[in-house]
Amino acid sequence: MRAVMMHSPGNVSVVDRDDPIIEQQTDAIIRVAATCICGSDLWPYRGANDVHDAHMGHEYVGYVEEVGSQVSSVRPGQFVVGSFMASDNTCEVCRAGYQSGCVHVQGMGGIGTQAQYARIPLADGTLVACPETPDADLVPSYLAASDVLGTGWFAAVAAQVGPGDTVAVVGDGAVGLMGVLAARELGAERIIAMSRHADRQALAVEFGATDVIETRGDEGVAAITEMTNGLGAHAVIEAVGTQESMMQAIGSTRAGGHIGFVGVSHGQEIPGNRLFRSLVHLHGGPAPVRRFLPDLMDRIASRSIDPGRVFDRTLPLEQAADGYRAMDTREAIKVLLEPFAG
Amino acid sequence: MRAVMMHSPGNVSVVDRDDPIIEQQTDAIIRVAATCICGSDLWPYRGANDVHDAHMGHEYVGYVEEVGSQVSSVRPGQFVVGSFMASDNTCEVCRAGYQSGCVHVQGMGGIGTQAQYARIPLADGTLVACPETPDADLVPSYLAASDVLGTGWFAAVAAQVGPGDTVAVVGDGAVGLMGVLAARELGAERIIAMSRHADRQALAVEFGATDVIETRGDEGVAAITEMTNGLGAHAVIEAVGTQESMMQAIGSTRAGGHIGFVGVSHGQEIPGNRLFRSLVHLHGGPAPVRRFLPDLMDRIASRSIDPGRVFDRTLPLEQAADGYRAMDTREAIKVLLEPFAG
Repeated sequence: MRAVMMHSPGNVSVVDRDDPIIEQQTDAIIRVAATCICGSDLWPYRGANDVHDAHMGHEYVGYVEEVGSQVSSVRPGQFVVGSFMASDNTCEVCRAGYQSGCVHVQGMGGIGTQAQYARIPLADGTLVACPETPDADLVPSYLAASDVLGTGWFAAVAAQVGPGDTVAVVGDGAVGLMGVLAARELGAERIIAMSRHADRQALAVEFGATDVIETRGDEGVAAITEMTNGLGAHAVIEAVGTQESMMQAIGSTRAGGHIGFVGVSHGQEIPGNRLFRSLVHLHGGPAPVRRFLPDLMDRIASRSIDPGRVFDRTLPLEQAADGYRAMDTREAIKVLLEPFAG
Repeated sequence: MRAVMMHSPGNVSVVDRDDPIIEQQTDAIIRVAATCICGSDLWPYRGANDVHDAHMGHEYVGYVEEVGSQVSSVRPGQFVVGSFMASDNTCEVCRAGYQSGCVHVQGMGGIGTQAQYARIPLADGTLVACPETPDADLVPSYLAASDVLGTGWFAAVAAQVGPGDTVAVVGDGAVGLMGVLAARELGAERIIAMSRHADRQALAVEFGATDVIETRGDEGVAAITEMTNGLGAHAVIEAVGTQESMMQAIGSTRAGGHIGFVGVSHGQEIPGNRLFRSLVHLHGGPAPVRRFLPDLMDRIASRSIDPGRVFDRTLPLEQAADGYRAMDTREAIKVLLEPFAG
């Protein structure tokens, strides 16, 4: 089969790779209907993480091809969505809703879903099947559920967004935009998107942002403070992962407020005394997408949300390198790859 | 009047000081019935914070002497308990239960309650009166409510301790011990106190600890992990404030679990990637004691809790320097000072 490989920072190509096979009887093999490039894939692309001939990709939707003998919840032919973290969904941590901290968790990044086929470990715990094959126009939305929607949703839930809240969203990447959508769905009254890019601002407004702020850092904090009677937002979504973005989030949250942070942390050192004085709640990490999948898939099926709008470019898998470039230069917000196109 | 002054690290004496007067019409003046030395007073005593001729003390119970014209909720003669943070208790942040983040907050530490009299700002929002003058043996418990009990209680609430939980408590000072008591009252099934001192271990058990661990750091984390089937505790109370104690707390908490941190942060730098991977909830800061006072005072009045047991030494105010020495050397857990003794 064909699969994406990142040879070194900035150097991506599509290569031949053996088709995946059932390795454990709890595995499923899927034919990937759609996959995509994640903001987190840009960290190694930009040299912020080491990378050497790595299989890429952890987001996916597709059709079940084959299942191991111990798989009972999905069967060949079904259209399935799965989290970017494989989990058993039965352990105590999973049952508490933290499938990304499952005692048997396996990151799909190590497997690589930017490919024509993918092996999904712990298929019963990881995959959720659609009742029937979805209309083609819904496929991007289901793909979003696999990571960015689930992650943005988790951020909003972690920030305890509720009816009437003022929510600030730090980060205008796909996850931040999905955070805006989640905040709207969870009843936020005012949603302040922090973005400097016209295309992302427009999408943020489409997803439910009521205000857009172009400043960042201390200036961004001052703007949020002013918009909230000096108190700060009830809830802040941190969807970047840098020191600046985290400090901006802490500074923008009122005493007793909540921060949901989902940007993959890079070089952050959170000053304890600043956190102490802030009296905020801080919760985040790799999103337990599996917790939210059934609900999110229902909302997609009923067309009450349209997260697939976050994909502003679709390419054949063979052109993955162009997709990485477009996301790196911010020409595209998020690139969908079609493994069997062309 | 007589009042404690810390001249420099390690150098405490009792000096003459002007009696406080009503400065704002929202003030009350109280005759201090009992005050005490806080673990946080040891930071400057040990030179970890700058100090020069500072008035000391922020914990207090006493009798109202005089009130400003705008004070309506307490009157002269009443026995009152107040938080170590004065608050209006009416602003939006107070109403959300974060009186320590009140828009008009004033720390009592700057006023100094290790004295015969004290001015309490924002008396209506800060003080809670007992329905009648309490029995003398309950005074230490009411005094504990002013800070250490309220702070330990907040830590347990911030850590979302609930029925059936396994709770670990990092720190065996007065606040940690009050955290043990709070965890028991909130229904925890297993309470693991981390302590190396026999006297504190005994008190922890009296307050409800079911297990005591003497190890700390990585060894302490390993012990908690082993006791919790490899998962970590549901809830962890961090009542120290050092880098080691915070990392111990993060390491001891299961994915999706909660940390309540109330140790005054000193030099902490929390690595974002560690926090991200841990999937824990982190919440803490200066406790909004006022939120809990009515409930805690009811529990004390009905003798269902006995937090006053945390005071293992009582001295006349004039011997405050001995009290500081005893706490610094860990001869005493917490020292109660009687301003009108002897």
